[in-house]
Amino acid sequence: MQKDISQAVIRRLPRYYRYLGDLLEEGIDRISSNDLSARMKVTASQIRQDLNNFGGFGQQGYGYNVRYLYEEIGKILGLDQNHNIVVIGAGNMGQALAKYTNFAKRGFSIIGLFDVSHDLIGTMVRDISISDISELPRFLAEHEVDIAVLTLPKDQAESAAATLVSCGIHAIWNFAHLDLDLPEDIIVENVHLSDSLMQLSYNIKQNSIE
Amino acid sequence: MQKDISQAVIRRLPRYYRYLGDLLEEGIDRISSNDLSARMKVTASQIRQDLNNFGGFGQQGYGYNVRYLYEEIGKILGLDQNHNIVVIGAGNMGQALAKYTNFAKRGFSIIGLFDVSHDLIGTMVRDISISDISELPRFLAEHEVDIAVLTLPKDQAESAAATLVSCGIHAIWNFAHLDLDLPEDIIVENVHLSDSLMQLSYNIKQNSIE
Repeated sequence: MQKDISQAVIRRLPRYYRYLGDLLEEGIDRISSNDLSARMKVTASQIRQDLNNFGGFGQQGYGYNVRYLYEEIGKILGLDQNHNIVVIGAGNMGQALAKYTNFAKRGFSIIGLFDVSHDLIGTMVRDISISDISELPRFLAEHEVDIAVLTLPKDQAESAAATLVSCGIHAIWNFAHLDLDLPEDIIVENVHLSDSLMQLSYNIKQNSIE
Repeated sequence: MQKDISQAVIRRLPRYYRYLGDLLEEGIDRISSNDLSARMKVTASQIRQDLNNFGGFGQQGYGYNVRYLYEEIGKILGLDQNHNIVVIGAGNMGQALAKYTNFAKRGFSIIGLFDVSHDLIGTMVRDISISDISELPRFLAEHEVDIAVLTLPKDQAESAAATLVSCGIHAIWNFAHLDLDLPEDIIVENVHLSDSLMQLSYNIKQNSIE
């Protein structure tokens, strides 16, 4: 089924998942495409088209079954599986991500934190002690790790990424302020916070000109 | 000049700015579109087209003047101006952002941190004491603030955003896990970390299927 879903729809799925989760929290079991449209500020026709990819559970006069849709989209997004995560770079951002409980709720479990700084090694973050990055290869050999979060400064990130890949890591969530140069089969999702802040700054400037 | 630059080019500018900044750090004064192309993994022809928007300083046999281009793009992005920032939500993520020195280097100055939690109020983050969010309106009346960073939990973010807007804030960098419902003239740049992690998870699942 997944092969038939366009990339454009895929990119919208996390947002649907978020809204459907909010509906569940509010105790709403079913919703019409019109009501969902009003909430999400997307046309009802777009919603119908998108959600039709997941089979015929949007019925006339009934609306969508919220929990079913939430779970189906969750499966497509791989959220029905647990993901073990290591965080490489246990500074402010790495620690903030490690402490973020919402990730754990969705099956993203942080099982290791690594840094180069002797000031940080041995510090406890939740129930994990920060390890020396030199121990990373052994750790990766002994544990099943699905995702490495890279929150090191730019000048240390490239070599850490190379180590991760040589130890068999296939997916990197990259917060470092550079584009990683890695083999094509490695999945990289970038969070370039500075780029985002510059986009905001650009829009502020445009607003002041107009 | 700015009016003539397409949105597609604008979205690419932070990345050019980042690469040009790296070149400057390496002491490189000029670069050909071919060399920049090899670094950025964008075609040389795209680079020439994009950078031609900034006037004729890419000369045959000379290449681009790195500093000039860096500064011109910086101006377009509004980085020639200082931006005062308040952080609303001084938990792990808010504190991590407040401690991030790269923002300050680019003229983004954090001048206030606010939270609802009595455990946090009064805590020092760098040289700023976390204030009670009830003091926000007075603070915004007394200080020129350009950007509010919103790092509160979802259930507190909407009302905080409304307060910000009623106090005259025009730009919000939103890390809260929801889409803010605000007047159209308010600039919002979202960083939905969970959406990004789900995109990564989706790609991992696809890789394992193929």
